[in-house]
Amino acid sequence: MENHKESSASTGWKVKASQTSNNTFNPIRAIVDGMVITPNSDKEMIALSLGDPTVFGNFPPPDTAVQGLLDAVTSGKYNGYGPSYGHVEARAAVANHVTTDGAVVDKGDVYLSCGCSDALNMAITVLADRGDNILVPCPGFSLYKTLSISQGIDVKLYKCKPEKCWETDLDHMASLIDSRTKAIVVVNPSNPCGSNFSRQHICDIIKVAEEYRIPIIADEIYADIVFKNERFVSCASMSANVPILSCGGIAKKFLVPGWRLGWVVVHDRHGIFGTEIRMGLVKLSQRILGPCTLIQGALPAILSTPKSFHLETIRKLEENADYLFNQINGLPGLNPIKPTAAMYMMVGFDKQHYPEFKDDVAFTERLISEQSVFCLPAKCFEYPNYFRVVLSVPRNKTEEACARLKKFCDMHYHP
Amino acid sequence: MENHKESSASTGWKVKASQTSNNTFNPIRAIVDGMVITPNSDKEMIALSLGDPTVFGNFPPPDTAVQGLLDAVTSGKYNGYGPSYGHVEARAAVANHVTTDGAVVDKGDVYLSCGCSDALNMAITVLADRGDNILVPCPGFSLYKTLSISQGIDVKLYKCKPEKCWETDLDHMASLIDSRTKAIVVVNPSNPCGSNFSRQHICDIIKVAEEYRIPIIADEIYADIVFKNERFVSCASMSANVPILSCGGIAKKFLVPGWRLGWVVVHDRHGIFGTEIRMGLVKLSQRILGPCTLIQGALPAILSTPKSFHLETIRKLEENADYLFNQINGLPGLNPIKPTAAMYMMVGFDKQHYPEFKDDVAFTERLISEQSVFCLPAKCFEYPNYFRVVLSVPRNKTEEACARLKKFCDMHYHP
Ligand SMILES: Cc1ncc(COP(=O)(O)O)c(C=O)c1O
Ligand SMILES: Cc1ncc(COP(=O)(O)O)c(C=O)c1O
Repeated sequence: MENHKESSASTGWKVKASQTSNNTFNPIRAIVDGMVITPNSDKEMIALSLGDPTVFGNFPPPDTAVQGLLDAVTSGKYNGYGPSYGHVEARAAVANHVTTDGAVVDKGDVYLSCGCSDALNMAITVLADRGDNILVPCPGFSLYKTLSISQGIDVKLYKCKPEKCWETDLDHMASLIDSRTKAIVVVNPSNPCGSNFSRQHICDIIKVAEEYRIPIIADEIYADIVFKNERFVSCASMSANVPILSCGGIAKKFLVPGWRLGWVVVHDRHGIFGTEIRMGLVKLSQRILGPCTLIQGALPAILSTPKSFHLETIRKLEENADYLFNQINGLPGLNPIKPTAAMYMMVGFDKQHYPEFKDDVAFTERLISEQSVFCLPAKCFEYPNYFRVVLSVPRNKTEEACARLKKFCDMHYHP
Repeated sequence: MENHKESSASTGWKVKASQTSNNTFNPIRAIVDGMVITPNSDKEMIALSLGDPTVFGNFPPPDTAVQGLLDAVTSGKYNGYGPSYGHVEARAAVANHVTTDGAVVDKGDVYLSCGCSDALNMAITVLADRGDNILVPCPGFSLYKTLSISQGIDVKLYKCKPEKCWETDLDHMASLIDSRTKAIVVVNPSNPCGSNFSRQHICDIIKVAEEYRIPIIADEIYADIVFKNERFVSCASMSANVPILSCGGIAKKFLVPGWRLGWVVVHDRHGIFGTEIRMGLVKLSQRILGPCTLIQGALPAILSTPKSFHLETIRKLEENADYLFNQINGLPGLNPIKPTAAMYMMVGFDKQHYPEFKDDVAFTERLISEQSVFCLPAKCFEYPNYFRVVLSVPRNKTEEACARLKKFCDMHYHP
């Protein structure tokens, strides 16, 4: 010890943040924090950037959820520790909620988590180690990468095709697989794309996974949030053989992202995951002891919300989607991809017609400084030259944002 | 790819749980799940093993907490995402709650987490990487090791002395420090010891940390739960120079462990942690986006609970402590260490007088099968030949448990 003591005494303190924390890198924060965001002071800011549907008050949570929670609080039954992977009643409610014809789920298959983020963390962490890799969609939600890189797990981005409603480029996906590939992340419906895969496309993805024997992590946090004439098809319901960890939660469908309740559901018809992966999920859940027990207590009530509530949510989202698509589609040099699900739309911009802006960050920065409209540059999703708009902003603000966007395009478009 | 494809197609699926999950090892679960627990069917089981004070209903949460939560739910203000490290009002309430003369805390110093478990995870993870080590108390709460080992961080156990009210063996602690030591974990008051360090002892620990320039992670989840004539002294209030991450939460003091709200408070008078550690905590919080926002909304109300509530909690705990200590102290070959804080008491048993039992696990197993009394073998805390009893069990059950323990000792004691 003497050596160490002397040297540290002379050099004083040297405390550094760990590599793990340095590598916990949220690209949205990194890019947005690096942007010059100075709105035009003559115009009220309109944020089409926020992935939180609750901020404007036009998407309140269902009464069932609020009442369920009040009941859970007053019951006095949910103050103590529960099992770290969830109370059995709450797990049973999730099992019932996600069961489909094609994929019957038992309460024993459900592991609760602190939001879908934690579910994804558990799913990735239980399958992959330092030096392994997982495949993630591009464009895609940035958290997969944040969670993986900080643990030394590599991510490989597989392409999705805007011209085919963001379907996966299956050849590209397959070409990325190597002996250290431990999972394919499939997000459907997609943030940031607002896409919903067809039954056939889900089957095609599963075929690749089966051919190469790679489990799927299905991020289905937007399950059921699909527009008229669309149908949500879960990965699990289409998979005869590929084992799947399906991650979900109440954040989006029940409009309570702050409540932080999610789940991992194990689909494993042939016991390929075995007990090992299940035990792994249990062990990982013991690190932070699971989600708030009050929300668990309310979960059966939350999940019993009538369908009409969701239909109304979807109606409002789709109305906004139609409006935004039609307006933006009419603007020169902008190429919106029509959404069919979730809460987002991607818009491409034609750089040759907007020569002033070197990229999506420059475009969206100037849109803020001139028009006080904030769209998220899709560089945040590793997809430059696009930006993402949300479909959950109240109609009058959406209209105003479109009018301003039109002004902006008229000003900067070069034919 | 062809190679991989062929080989996996022929050998079929090979999905294994990650090393990370395999190494997420909770000794309490491992030991308890491995125990033969077959209570005597003639006697109702009494669990003196459960670290959850809410299980018997004799420690309900304060009305302020319940009402605060009902208000937060009905306000409709806490459904959306908050900042991942917590709402500013909630952080301000914690700052006020933990501020002492010696350590004034600003809301900017507070990072909320999903329980104290998550706070510890953040604190350990922000300071240490794979191959580094941290010092942890022995006996001590097992989570430090669970969290560390799964990340490849080593733990070194420093001894605490039962004969000195579980004070730290400072020479031993210092002897363990090497160039990869990134933090000293100090738990005070202690689980499993029920000890509360004197001001002087805290100063002595800090002196070691300062000499070797090692930051302290102070696990203060039992802050303020100290018996009559004791005073809780936080590490931060005694530290002029050593930077400290103090981990706490509402689980114990407010008797709501299921609500999963905790915090890391950064104490860093001389900027030794700099912005790097703070940024690291922010980044780590972005992995799962923080604790349930409803509990955050209620936090100012929860933390305003009148002192009388806590005094009553402490009175009941101390009454049980006195009773348990006196009873067990009168039993042959058992050596209880009188607790002065928290919710636990450690009891040593003299192996030479109980030759039938090779260790604490065997002793406690038999106590279950004969007397239906469950005490936690202290092997769970790396401290064999002791067992831990909790102080929060209702008085009548505690009395009955003591009577049965007496019978057990009378039966098995060899003079
Ligand atoms: C695709 C996707 N997955 C997961 C999440 C995280 O969900 P939660 O808030 O439940 O952690 C989000 C949040 O926006 C998301 O868009
Ligand atoms: C010493 C100690 N630290 C931390 C914790 C975890 O607290 P929480 O329930 O807030 O995660 C416990 C729980 O028993 C404990 O005993």
